[in-house]
Amino acid sequence: MGHSPVSDGEPSTWVPAQVPGAVQLDWAAGQGWGPFYWGDNWRDYGWMEDAYWTYRAMLPTSSPGSDSRAVLVCCGVDYACRVFVGERLVHEQEGMFTPFEIDVSEHLGQELRIVVSPAPKEPGVAEGRDQARRSCKPAVSYGWDFHPRLIPLGIWDETYLQIWGADRLADAETRYRLAEDLNHADLELRVVADGSRGARVRWQVEDDSGRIVVDQTGPLTETQTARLDQPELWWPHDQGPQTRYRSRVMLLDGDGQVLDERVQAFGLRRVRLVMHEGAWTWPDSFPKTRSNPPITLEVNGRRIFGKGANWVSPDIFPGTLDEGRYREQLELAKGANMNLLRMWGGAPVQKEAFYRLCDELGIMVWQEFPLACNAYPDDPDYLRVVDQESRSILRRLRRHPSVVLWCGGNELFNGWSGMTDQSHALRLLNANCFELDRQTPFLPTSPVMGMGHGHYVFADLETGEEAWSLFQNASCTAYTEFGCGGPSPEPVLRSFLPEDELFPPKPGTVWETHHAFGVWMPQSHLYLETIEHYLGPVTSLEDLVEKGQLLQAEGFRGLFEEARRQMPVASMALNWCLNEPWPCAANNSLLAWPCEPKPALQAVGEACRPSLASARVRKFMWRPGEWFDPELWVLHDGPEEIEGGAMVAELDRGTGFEPLLSWDFPTLAPNQNLRGPRVQFQLPPSAAGRMVLRLSVEGRPELESRYTLVLSTGSSNAPTLKRLNF
Amino acid sequence: MGHSPVSDGEPSTWVPAQVPGAVQLDWAAGQGWGPFYWGDNWRDYGWMEDAYWTYRAMLPTSSPGSDSRAVLVCCGVDYACRVFVGERLVHEQEGMFTPFEIDVSEHLGQELRIVVSPAPKEPGVAEGRDQARRSCKPAVSYGWDFHPRLIPLGIWDETYLQIWGADRLADAETRYRLAEDLNHADLELRVVADGSRGARVRWQVEDDSGRIVVDQTGPLTETQTARLDQPELWWPHDQGPQTRYRSRVMLLDGDGQVLDERVQAFGLRRVRLVMHEGAWTWPDSFPKTRSNPPITLEVNGRRIFGKGANWVSPDIFPGTLDEGRYREQLELAKGANMNLLRMWGGAPVQKEAFYRLCDELGIMVWQEFPLACNAYPDDPDYLRVVDQESRSILRRLRRHPSVVLWCGGNELFNGWSGMTDQSHALRLLNANCFELDRQTPFLPTSPVMGMGHGHYVFADLETGEEAWSLFQNASCTAYTEFGCGGPSPEPVLRSFLPEDELFPPKPGTVWETHHAFGVWMPQSHLYLETIEHYLGPVTSLEDLVEKGQLLQAEGFRGLFEEARRQMPVASMALNWCLNEPWPCAANNSLLAWPCEPKPALQAVGEACRPSLASARVRKFMWRPGEWFDPELWVLHDGPEEIEGGAMVAELDRGTGFEPLLSWDFPTLAPNQNLRGPRVQFQLPPSAAGRMVLRLSVEGRPELESRYTLVLSTGSSNAPTLKRLNF
Repeated sequence: MGHSPVSDGEPSTWVPAQVPGAVQLDWAAGQGWGPFYWGDNWRDYGWMEDAYWTYRAMLPTSSPGSDSRAVLVCCGVDYACRVFVGERLVHEQEGMFTPFEIDVSEHLGQELRIVVSPAPKEPGVAEGRDQARRSCKPAVSYGWDFHPRLIPLGIWDETYLQIWGADRLADAETRYRLAEDLNHADLELRVVADGSRGARVRWQVEDDSGRIVVDQTGPLTETQTARLDQPELWWPHDQGPQTRYRSRVMLLDGDGQVLDERVQAFGLRRVRLVMHEGAWTWPDSFPKTRSNPPITLEVNGRRIFGKGANWVSPDIFPGTLDEGRYREQLELAKGANMNLLRMWGGAPVQKEAFYRLCDELGIMVWQEFPLACNAYPDDPDYLRVVDQESRSILRRLRRHPSVVLWCGGNELFNGWSGMTDQSHALRLLNANCFELDRQTPFLPTSPVMGMGHGHYVFADLETGEEAWSLFQNASCTAYTEFGCGGPSPEPVLRSFLPEDELFPPKPGTVWETHHAFGVWMPQSHLYLETIEHYLGPVTSLEDLVEKGQLLQAEGFRGLFEEARRQMPVASMALNWCLNEPWPCAANNSLLAWPCEPKPALQAVGEACRPSLASARVRKFMWRPGEWFDPELWVLHDGPEEIEGGAMVAELDRGTGFEPLLSWDFPTLAPNQNLRGPRVQFQLPPSAAGRMVLRLSVEGRPELESRYTLVLSTGSSNAPTLKRLNF
Repeated sequence: MGHSPVSDGEPSTWVPAQVPGAVQLDWAAGQGWGPFYWGDNWRDYGWMEDAYWTYRAMLPTSSPGSDSRAVLVCCGVDYACRVFVGERLVHEQEGMFTPFEIDVSEHLGQELRIVVSPAPKEPGVAEGRDQARRSCKPAVSYGWDFHPRLIPLGIWDETYLQIWGADRLADAETRYRLAEDLNHADLELRVVADGSRGARVRWQVEDDSGRIVVDQTGPLTETQTARLDQPELWWPHDQGPQTRYRSRVMLLDGDGQVLDERVQAFGLRRVRLVMHEGAWTWPDSFPKTRSNPPITLEVNGRRIFGKGANWVSPDIFPGTLDEGRYREQLELAKGANMNLLRMWGGAPVQKEAFYRLCDELGIMVWQEFPLACNAYPDDPDYLRVVDQESRSILRRLRRHPSVVLWCGGNELFNGWSGMTDQSHALRLLNANCFELDRQTPFLPTSPVMGMGHGHYVFADLETGEEAWSLFQNASCTAYTEFGCGGPSPEPVLRSFLPEDELFPPKPGTVWETHHAFGVWMPQSHLYLETIEHYLGPVTSLEDLVEKGQLLQAEGFRGLFEEARRQMPVASMALNWCLNEPWPCAANNSLLAWPCEPKPALQAVGEACRPSLASARVRKFMWRPGEWFDPELWVLHDGPEEIEGGAMVAELDRGTGFEPLLSWDFPTLAPNQNLRGPRVQFQLPPSAAGRMVLRLSVEGRPELESRYTLVLSTGSSNAPTLKRLNF
C-alpha cells in the first residue's frame, strides 16, 4: 500500500496493508510510528486525508475451473474508490456502505489495485463537520467534541477472492409478516440465481431446536410462501428469548442435484411505535395543534421502556472493529440492563457482526443513516449517493430482528443543522425505508416533537440548575441524549498523557486535545470547577478521577431513574454516550477507549434494573438544617407482576444508617411504577460531607438502591460560569 | 339509468341520466321529486347509498375508419364500478379519481353499461364518517357538521366516446426545474405514443405573447430537454402576473407528417416551505426538542403570507360542478384578497376546470388527499387504492402551477383520527409525492407541530373567552382553520325552511337538520344565546340574520387581522370555511349555498387587503367606564414598499366620530408590518350599544378600517354554556 498526491500517481513507497483496516494505521505501522492516540500524535495524520491511497495485490494464477468463477468480494471501501485489474478500470464507486463484487476470472495472474480517493469535502467550506455535508461519509471524523480531526480511509470491511460455481444463489432472502394476533407468520422467500442450470429451489426452515418446520420445493422463478403457526418470537433480552429460525435455501438443477446453498438466520418480531397512554388527550385547548408523535416501542404487542445509550464510533478506525471488539462492549451494555442502543448518525453503520450479536444478545437497535448536524442539500448528485447507500444499508440490516427503528440522522431539525421535514434526503430515506422495510418504524431524526436532547452537564454552567432538576421539571416523551462528563480511569489516562502533564489537568496540554477542556465550553468535558464545588479540592490524579467519576455516576443514576419515573409519558432513556473512539481525558461516555468501564456504567446498570426501589431526590447538594425530602418509588418495567414489600429509607451521614421512613408497597402489575410517600427530614445543623441514602426492601436485596449525596455549607447551586463562544 | 338491490340485478325502472352528475339527482328528477335541499327531503335519499346503479347507452354503429379507434373515455366514476359491453365485463375499478379508457372499436353497436356499486363502508361500523376509513371515498358525505348523510354515487366527471387515429400521443408532459437563481428553467418533455407509424416528436414552446421560444424535433423514444433563459414566472395574483407557456407536441411519421398533436399550458414557479425568521432560535432550553417545522410559503424566492379559506364540498353532488360554478366562487375569493385555498381532505379533489381557473386567477392551492378525521389502516388492500388514487391525482394536478402544497389529509394526528407519522398511508403519500412531484412541498396533515386549528366559536362556550383573545394569546406558525358561525342570508333561509318554522329558530325543526342546532354542541352553528348576549334579543328573522352575520363578520375580521399581525411567526390565515355543500341555516362559511356571500366575506376581504390600518382590540364587548385600549398597526404584505402616512383613530358611540389618537407612521418595506401606539381612552359611564372604531389615513382611503364593537352594561364575557356529549 502506498500514497500519491494525485489521482493517477504511482506511490513511491509501499508498506504492508492490513485488510480490513485503514490506510492511516498501515502507513504508521510501516513507518514505525508510536500509537496514534498517544499525546498529540494524531496531528501527524492530518495530510493523509488528502492523499490517494493505492492497495495492490496479485490475483492468483490458478484457474477456478471451467464451471466456476473467481469473484472479488468487497464489503466496503471507505470512502470512494476505483478498482483496476492490470491497466483496466473495472469498478468505480462512492460510498462505504455498498458492497461490490467483480468477476476477475478472466484476469487471474494480473495485479489488482484499489485506489482510494481523498476524504470527500464540500468545496469552499472551513475545516470541520460542514465539510461532510455533501456525502455519506460519517461526519464524526471531521472533528467532534470527543473525536479529533482524523478521517479514516481505506478498505474497512471484509474483502476477499471467492471461487463460485457458475450456477449459484446470488441472493436468497426470507421475509415475513406476523398476523395481527401474532398466532402465525406468513413467510416469503425470494431468490436471485446466476447461471443457466438452476431449475428449482428447495426451501427448508428449521426452528431453534433443529426441527424442520418448512420443507418445500418450487420453481426458480417464483416467490415461495409458507405459513408458520404459533411461531416462537424474538424478544429483547429483558422480555423473552431471542429465538431465531434458520432458512436453508438450495438451488437445484433439473435432476435435483444441489448446485448452491444459502443459510439465513431470521427472528420474528413485530415492532411499532405507539402513542403512550393519555397522549391523545393533549393538546386540549384552542388553537389546537397535533398530538405528540409516538415513540413508545411496542414489540410483539408489549410496550417496552427503552433503556440504553448512544453508540458512537467505538474506534476512530472502524476497519479495526471485529466481533471480539463488538462483543465485549455489547456484553457490558447488556450487563448494564440496556435493551436499546441508538446508532448515532454521526458515526458509521457497523459491520455485520455487530447486528448478529445484537440479535443473539437481545439488544434492540435504533439505526440512523449517516447524516448528522449538517444541512444536507437537495442536490441530485448527493441524493443519488444517499439513495444507493441507504438501499445497501436497508437490504443488509432489515434481516436482523434487533433492528427495530430506522432514523434519518442526528439533530437534523435543529438550528445547528437546518434541515426540515421538506428536505429531500429525509423524504427519500422515508420512502426507501417504506419500500424496503415498511414493517419497521421510521423517524426523520432525533429529537422530534415531544422528545428531548440534553443537557450534557451535571449542573448548568449558566444557571447553576442541576440536570436532575431539569429532568424533574421536563416532560419529554423520550430522553434520547443526555450526558454527564467524567474522567477516564487512571490507566487509560496514563496510556496517552505524558507523565509531566498528568496532574494537575490544564488547558493547552494533551488534556485539552483529548477533550477535557475547551470543547464546547471552556470547562467541558472535565468540569473541574463543578467537581471541586461539589466535592472539594482535588489533590491528586487519583482523587480527581474518584471525584469526577462519582459525580458522573450519580448524575446518570438520577437521570435514568427520573426518566423511568415519567413512564408512560416517557418511554426511553438513552444516555450520551456508551463508548468513545479514542482515549478521551474526560467524556460523557460510560466506557473509556477501548473498553474500560467507568463507575457510571455500574450506576446506569443499577438504575436500569427491571425492578428497583428508587428515590426522587431534588438535588445533589444539601445544606445543614434543610428539609431533606426524597420521594419513594418502586420502578418496574418487567413483563411480569412483582410482589409488594416493605421498603425502608435510611440515611448515613458518616455515622451509620438512621431510618427515615418505612413504606409497605403493594403488588405491581407488569410494566408499572408506583409512587410512594415523601420523606420529610430536617438535616442536622452541621455539615458532614458525603452522605448516603439507602432504600432497601426486606428479603429483596435485588431491589436495594443507594444514592451518594453531599451535605455541605457551600452554596447549593453549582457555580455559574459564562460560556465562551469559540 | 336504474337501480337494483343486487350486484347483477336488472333495474325494473329506467330514468334519463345526466352525465356527469349523480344517480340520486337522476332518480329524483325521474320521479319528479322536489329539491333535495328543501326541508327534510334529504332523508328520502338514504336507501340509495346501498343500491347498485346501472347506466346504459348504445354505442354508435358507424365504424371509426380502418386506421382509427373508438375509445370510451371516462374521467371519473364515484366510487366503484364495473363496465360491460354487451355481456362482457371490460373494466372494473375502485376509486373515483382514476380516469380510464376502454377501446370499444370492436364493440360498436352494442350496449354499454356502467354498474356503480353501493357506497363503500367499513364493515361493522356505526353510521358516520368512520365508515369511510377503508376507502378513498371522501368522508364528508357520510355526515358532517355542515353536510347531511347523503352519499353521492355515479359518473361524476366527463365521459364520452372519442375517435382517435391509431397513431396518437397517449401522453405528452412538459416538466421543468428552475435554476436556484431563477434565471433559467430546464424543460423536459416526455411522450407516450400509441401506434406504429410515429417516428419523431416536434416540440414547440410558445410564451405568453405567442412567441415561439423552443422549436425542436427529436426521436420518439427519447426525452427531450430545452432551456428557457430569463423565463417569465407564474405568481399568485397579489404578487405578479400569472404567466403561462404553451407546449405544443406533435407526433410525426417518417415523412414528417403530423399524426397527432397535444397542447399543454404550464407555468413556472418555485415553491418551498421555509422557516420563519427567528424560528431556529427556538427551542432554547434543555432538554431540547426540535424546532417547529416550516410552513411559510416561499414562491419564486419571495415569502408570502397565505390568506384564504378552506374549500370544502361546494355541492353535495360534485358531478354537478362545472367551470361556471367554480368561477363564481373563485372570483369572489380573489375579490376578497385571498391568495390561498386549502382543499380540505374530507371533500373530493375537484375537477380539472377548478385548477385551470386557479392557474388563471393566481390563487394558490393546498391540495389534500381524500383522508379526513379517521384512522385509515395499514391494510394492504386499502394501501393499493391509496397508491392508485394518489398517483392519478398527482399526475393530473402537478401540471398546474397553482398547486403549491400537497397534504395527506385533515387532522390525522389528533385523537379523533388516531393516525401518526408511522401510518403507512401517509408514508406512502409522502413517497408518491416525492417520486412524482418532489419540487412541491408535502405536509402529512394539518395541523402539524406549531400550527393551530380552531376555535370555531365567537366566544368559548365553556370559558367565555373570545376567539380574538385566544388568538392574541397564541403563537401559531399558521392558523389553518378557525371559524365563526353565522346565519345564511334570508333568501337562502327561505329557499329550504317551511314558512311556519322560519322564526323563531328552534331545535327539532329544519333549522336543526340544516345545522343551526345540535351539531357538535347544542348551540352550533347558530349560537343564538351568544348573539343575544352581545347584541340583545332578536325580534325577527331579519333581525336575527343581521345580528348573527355582524358577529360572524367582526369575528372573522379580528381573527384574520390578528393572524397577520403575528407575521413572520405566523404565515397563514385560512378560515373555516369558504363555501358549503347545501344551504345551511347557520354555518362558519363565508358563502351560503350555492354561492351567496355573507357580510363576513366582505369583512375578510377588508382584513386581507395587502395594506391596511389595523387595530388590535382586546375584546368585542366593553363596559362603561373601562379603559378602551386598541393598539394601532399598519399591516402590509405586498411585494413593494408603501409610503408612510398619518393615521387617525376615532370612535363613534352613536353621536359621531371623536378623535382618540394620531400616529405618523414611516415608510414600510415590502412584506413588513408596523406596530404603533396604544390608545388609552376611558369610556363614558353610560352604555351606548354599538360603537364604531375607525382608523383612517389622510388621502389614503384604501387603508381605512372600521370595527363595530359593543358598549354594554352586561357582563363582558360570553355566557358559559355546558357542552353536551352526543
